[in-house]
Amino acid sequence: MDKFYYLDNAATTQVFDEVYDLMRNNNIDSFYNPSASYKLGNKSKKILDEARDNINQVLHGDCGKLIFTSSATESNNAVFRGVHLRAGQVVLISAGEHPAVYNSAHELAKRGIIVKDIPLLKNGKIDIEKLKDMLTDEVALVSVIHISNETGAINDIKEICKIVKQKNKDIIFHSDGVQALGRIKINLRDLGVDLYTISAHKIYAPRGIAGLWIKNGLVLDPMLYGGGQENGLRSSTENVAGSLAFAYAAKKLNDELDSNYKKITNLKKELIKKINESEISDYIEFNSDEECLPYIVSLSIPKIKGQVLVNAMEDDGVVVSTGSACSSKKAGNRVLEAMGKTLDETIGSIRISFSPYINYELDYIVSVIIKNILRFKKMQKLKD
Amino acid sequence: MDKFYYLDNAATTQVFDEVYDLMRNNNIDSFYNPSASYKLGNKSKKILDEARDNINQVLHGDCGKLIFTSSATESNNAVFRGVHLRAGQVVLISAGEHPAVYNSAHELAKRGIIVKDIPLLKNGKIDIEKLKDMLTDEVALVSVIHISNETGAINDIKEICKIVKQKNKDIIFHSDGVQALGRIKINLRDLGVDLYTISAHKIYAPRGIAGLWIKNGLVLDPMLYGGGQENGLRSSTENVAGSLAFAYAAKKLNDELDSNYKKITNLKKELIKKINESEISDYIEFNSDEECLPYIVSLSIPKIKGQVLVNAMEDDGVVVSTGSACSSKKAGNRVLEAMGKTLDETIGSIRISFSPYINYELDYIVSVIIKNILRFKKMQKLKD
Repeated sequence: MDKFYYLDNAATTQVFDEVYDLMRNNNIDSFYNPSASYKLGNKSKKILDEARDNINQVLHGDCGKLIFTSSATESNNAVFRGVHLRAGQVVLISAGEHPAVYNSAHELAKRGIIVKDIPLLKNGKIDIEKLKDMLTDEVALVSVIHISNETGAINDIKEICKIVKQKNKDIIFHSDGVQALGRIKINLRDLGVDLYTISAHKIYAPRGIAGLWIKNGLVLDPMLYGGGQENGLRSSTENVAGSLAFAYAAKKLNDELDSNYKKITNLKKELIKKINESEISDYIEFNSDEECLPYIVSLSIPKIKGQVLVNAMEDDGVVVSTGSACSSKKAGNRVLEAMGKTLDETIGSIRISFSPYINYELDYIVSVIIKNILRFKKMQKLKD
Repeated sequence: MDKFYYLDNAATTQVFDEVYDLMRNNNIDSFYNPSASYKLGNKSKKILDEARDNINQVLHGDCGKLIFTSSATESNNAVFRGVHLRAGQVVLISAGEHPAVYNSAHELAKRGIIVKDIPLLKNGKIDIEKLKDMLTDEVALVSVIHISNETGAINDIKEICKIVKQKNKDIIFHSDGVQALGRIKINLRDLGVDLYTISAHKIYAPRGIAGLWIKNGLVLDPMLYGGGQENGLRSSTENVAGSLAFAYAAKKLNDELDSNYKKITNLKKELIKKINESEISDYIEFNSDEECLPYIVSLSIPKIKGQVLVNAMEDDGVVVSTGSACSSKKAGNRVLEAMGKTLDETIGSIRISFSPYINYELDYIVSVIIKNILRFKKMQKLKD
């Protein structure tokens, strides 16, 4: 393969090579069991807690504590398992949630809890006016994704959380921040949330480590029972090496956030401009507007199957996806549907997601998009 | 520190340095999201499934499938959360379980399920005669640890499972094999179990990856909801790099099992001989007999606090523990108590656990044990 460009960084990112060096170099100091009762265990625990504090600093989360989990999916599951809820209470989640929130929240129905989806606007953000109508006295928990993994639509979590807390300050507010960490500035104190989910493997750190930030005072049921690690919330020998890697990546991306954002903003603008100025412009609808996070560009080519296009582009060395890998095996796209897209538009959608650490040759990438769309359009016309 | 010997390998092991190289060298091929719908995702999934098969081969587990989890604690929790149980049914666990089984099983009481502990014999194995009496018609699930993490006592899982299945073949049988993997030959088909827990970080692979082996046909509730990974049982982007590391370590330890076992058996014999021939022999009771796994030697020095001895020995560069790190912050030792040990014996216990990959200078280690025990005995006599 001559040219190769990975454009599915919203699904997962390639671990920074130096992260493996970091873990290997700390292999001796960090491997002791942080729960061991001897001094070397404490040394290892100190490394873990420093990593925790460093990530918390990136989050401006001093009014809460970060619990290390194994994945964002686990963090999101922990919210819907751990928040104290009783039958008859209402949980509101956005229709634009990642499956880890969407499916774990809807599991609550089995316990007699009523789970409702907050509709989305055409731009992919939640419909705040509709949310206001849904905020009845029975609402106990609200979960709204910070940045859509499908379109990059950014929800105004601060404003949404304020509206929820004005209705009833006891409503617990969670946000899945997986696509936000390392891409935009996060200030959890300012956002006002009670719970916030982050993941390492979306920011060039390994899988097997993620986090759930919990505001001080909020009591959750434990995620896992056992040795009582992570303040009794998540038993398991602590993943110290993973925490080091996670903290390193969180700090690096935070340090480079502004320059990365500028770079990716330009990439997105250029991509859209090149497509709009090309012969395929009439075939394409962008599902990510200019207010979306520039890292993610969702577009629809009605009547061409996204999956077919993804396969063809991969053969040309351009790796994009049909959307969330966690939903990729299902037909259609729940989030785009919730934005009011037609079936043709959802089936015909692809997601392009950039990394600031890859040098993209946009002209080539756009030429691959154009070539393949023209090819499939031609085939389609022959069929018509 | 001149001399340094880590003797807490039952708590956790130092990751093989080459495992980090392995993960780094596979960083490009293995980072793609195995759930992505394009070919590179499938490539990554193939690496994952090869690792899964390689571990399953070590387990002789072709009559079931290995599900990757993030930790043995998660695997054990998944058993008690995932097996279909209803109020009034009985779950039997051994009194010698690790907290990850013990605490997650006893959580079931909240759902009206009756959880009973199978008593231990003085040698640390479960009392099979008592188990027979406990096998009433209401028993739905039995969980017996394969090898005790506290004493190395080896339960005859094949025999125990046979007895349980003879009573009622529908009783589900789980065994926590964390201390067995890489130390003794495991043949899951032969053992007859339905569920088996293994962990990577106890066999020189990183944290963040572990496994739950599930016999074909057994249906569990999902551990995590989301993208539907791991056959819908455990959503989360799959930890491909971790699976590679886990499979590498499982194969290496399995290949070197016999020579390692011989080496450690000699070490244990020598250790016990040297202690028994020393001036402290009268002060010491071994909680691990000659039938126990040689990797773990538990001993009691009544009236000397284990924690005090652990601290003093660490200052001399000999790192042992008071027992499971997952229980180390609690007073006493539940497992030793269940073996009929007195409070003095449980509080006065330390656990020595060997690694075949560390060169131990036994004379030095024994001299440190002797020196410190004599010192504390002298202090104690002065107090008396």
